[in-house]
Amino acid sequence: MFDRVWLNAHLATMDGPGLGIIEDGAVAAKDGRIAWVGPRTELPGPAAETVDCNGAWVLPGLIDCHTHLVFGGNRAAEFEQRLAGATYEQIARAGGGIFSSVRATRAASEDELYEAGLPRLQGLLAEGVTTVEIKSGYGLDLESELKMLRVARRLGETQPVTVATTLLAAHAVPPGYEGGTAAFARHVAQDIVPAAIGLADAVDAFCEGIAFSPEETGWVFGAARARGLPVKLHADQLSDLGGAALAARYGALSADHLEYASAEGLRAMAAAGSVAVLLPGATYFLREARHPDIAAMRAAGVRMALSTDMNPGSSPARSLLLMLNLGCTLFRLTVEEALLGVTRHAAAALGMEDRGVLRAGARCDLALFGIGRPAELCYWLGGNPCLGRVVGGA
Amino acid sequence: MFDRVWLNAHLATMDGPGLGIIEDGAVAAKDGRIAWVGPRTELPGPAAETVDCNGAWVLPGLIDCHTHLVFGGNRAAEFEQRLAGATYEQIARAGGGIFSSVRATRAASEDELYEAGLPRLQGLLAEGVTTVEIKSGYGLDLESELKMLRVARRLGETQPVTVATTLLAAHAVPPGYEGGTAAFARHVAQDIVPAAIGLADAVDAFCEGIAFSPEETGWVFGAARARGLPVKLHADQLSDLGGAALAARYGALSADHLEYASAEGLRAMAAAGSVAVLLPGATYFLREARHPDIAAMRAAGVRMALSTDMNPGSSPARSLLLMLNLGCTLFRLTVEEALLGVTRHAAAALGMEDRGVLRAGARCDLALFGIGRPAELCYWLGGNPCLGRVVGGA
Ligand SMILES: [Zn+2]
Ligand SMILES: [Zn+2]
Repeated sequence: MFDRVWLNAHLATMDGPGLGIIEDGAVAAKDGRIAWVGPRTELPGPAAETVDCNGAWVLPGLIDCHTHLVFGGNRAAEFEQRLAGATYEQIARAGGGIFSSVRATRAASEDELYEAGLPRLQGLLAEGVTTVEIKSGYGLDLESELKMLRVARRLGETQPVTVATTLLAAHAVPPGYEGGTAAFARHVAQDIVPAAIGLADAVDAFCEGIAFSPEETGWVFGAARARGLPVKLHADQLSDLGGAALAARYGALSADHLEYASAEGLRAMAAAGSVAVLLPGATYFLREARHPDIAAMRAAGVRMALSTDMNPGSSPARSLLLMLNLGCTLFRLTVEEALLGVTRHAAAALGMEDRGVLRAGARCDLALFGIGRPAELCYWLGGNPCLGRVVGGA
Repeated sequence: MFDRVWLNAHLATMDGPGLGIIEDGAVAAKDGRIAWVGPRTELPGPAAETVDCNGAWVLPGLIDCHTHLVFGGNRAAEFEQRLAGATYEQIARAGGGIFSSVRATRAASEDELYEAGLPRLQGLLAEGVTTVEIKSGYGLDLESELKMLRVARRLGETQPVTVATTLLAAHAVPPGYEGGTAAFARHVAQDIVPAAIGLADAVDAFCEGIAFSPEETGWVFGAARARGLPVKLHADQLSDLGGAALAARYGALSADHLEYASAEGLRAMAAAGSVAVLLPGATYFLREARHPDIAAMRAAGVRMALSTDMNPGSSPARSLLLMLNLGCTLFRLTVEEALLGVTRHAAAALGMEDRGVLRAGARCDLALFGIGRPAELCYWLGGNPCLGRVVGGA
């Protein structure tokens, strides 16, 4: 006897081959997990409750595996100034750039940050998202970083969604900090990472010429791994610092961006099981001519995920469905790659092997869509065909 | 005594200078029109009803001045095939391309087309749109073109929105048509344009190497103008055929796309009062390297509008707000240009001088947004901050 069964639906199980399509399928849940998936006509038993999906398509609940959706303020004024002709330098002198987000985030109370993040999160949920990663990284001091993580946790507790938290204290050297990048990276490794135990599910860093060196990143990663925390990396976005290989060396869950990653680095990631997280919103918003090398990723056999990178500076993207279209249009991902990127491979990028597919034993997180075929999720530019979500079987 | 007044709002009147910003403003309506706009403290009289906007920003109701939102089927399968490596030729041989939309549109009943278009229209309304243009052009025979126009009219009658209809029979030569482009253009001019009187508010054509020549376009335009119908033109999208100048010669309300329009053509448009309608969704979706020459448009003093071009082939764009971001990001429009492009200049592109601004005497169509400044409408990529709409004062 199942708790609940969903009928009159087409399934994209994301469990292969291809999209794992089962037309006229059924999903049955028991105790919050998927107990059975298959063609409706083969459904093995009765259920306490039956849900008629009216011909909708059912996918695993979508997963946005890379967001910075907790932040104070926004940078719309800066966007406006830049379009009116202001240079980056003028904007920086006027107090713009990442430090304006740091100031606004530090100044905001936990309640204010929660209220700011809530509609951003809810917008994702309305599209069928059931798991979201949220990074810190606009606090840049111990207390403010922990504040951001607490807000992320609270969002996950009050909303019907799983929130995975990531400490990104090594995002930038904070304004007014006396030491350089090395000193701050040491502070992160020695003080902030230990203090985030219990609040952070993973540790991330920004390894880049304008941020932290591979060596400094290694200190932060070492501190994380020593405490059993998995790592992720903002890698090779603006130049090839060997970030992909560095991430692989630390067994990272993922390396993200990767516009400049080398084929060798990608192969190392594949061997380590690290997922390549593609962030086309940032590529688009920054009008970055260099795109991640999808052909090399395919050749290396590295799994690709796709995410909003929702953040106020380089990707004010509030829609994961839109990233499907951007990933296909800009990066020429196939529909299968794009959809794996927001389900199964996004789950892998968070180390959550219990979701992202419709398969017996997996968490029963579902997203229902009013579409004629899964490709429509990638094809439309804007609009939201999500009809509903199921989180943990309910 | 006003019928209604909106208080506790900030206004972007779009009536200059700049965005026409009035912080802590008020809008008063009488008989469906705006009777007064200004700072709240100067509101001249009482109203039968007062609406508290809770600090929202109020703009003129948004206007999407170029859509093909009535069509049968969609081309998601074709999109999927193309990403999987199929060539345009293979897709055409498999029955794809515009003719698949023509077949599906012809095969659909009026009710089916209405049901297909309705959610697309409603998605726009949810973003604050109060006026939408809808073109025919997937019928390509007299009866099917009139069917599309009737569906567009019906959408305008049943939904709280003004729909402007445009006959675009000269979109392509229909599949299986015996004559060539010249014969079909003559048929459109002699038979279809006259039959559309009363159903179409304007006449459009696709002037392009792969469609109709300037001369053939002229026949269609001549037939329209002789019957008092204004014209619009899909012009200079893929090559410079002098479409901008041609449109100007016929006093067109607008010429649209304009990627290859010459500076001379743009000056002719400015002199004729024709609006340049920018369609960044198509530029993006087709990955067109050539962008419209915004600098030349500014130099010519031609008014620019911004629209979705919502259509199944080259711009499956279902969000006008997203076009604000695309227009700013891809074309580097300023925030002012982008917002004028979906309000005042979009109204001009439809010959509707009674809307698109908050000004005494204009139609009381309003859009309310939960934002900190108007630039946020351009800055966010996805998400919908629209809190509500007012249509004709109600
Ligand atoms: Zn990021
Ligand atoms: Zn068009």
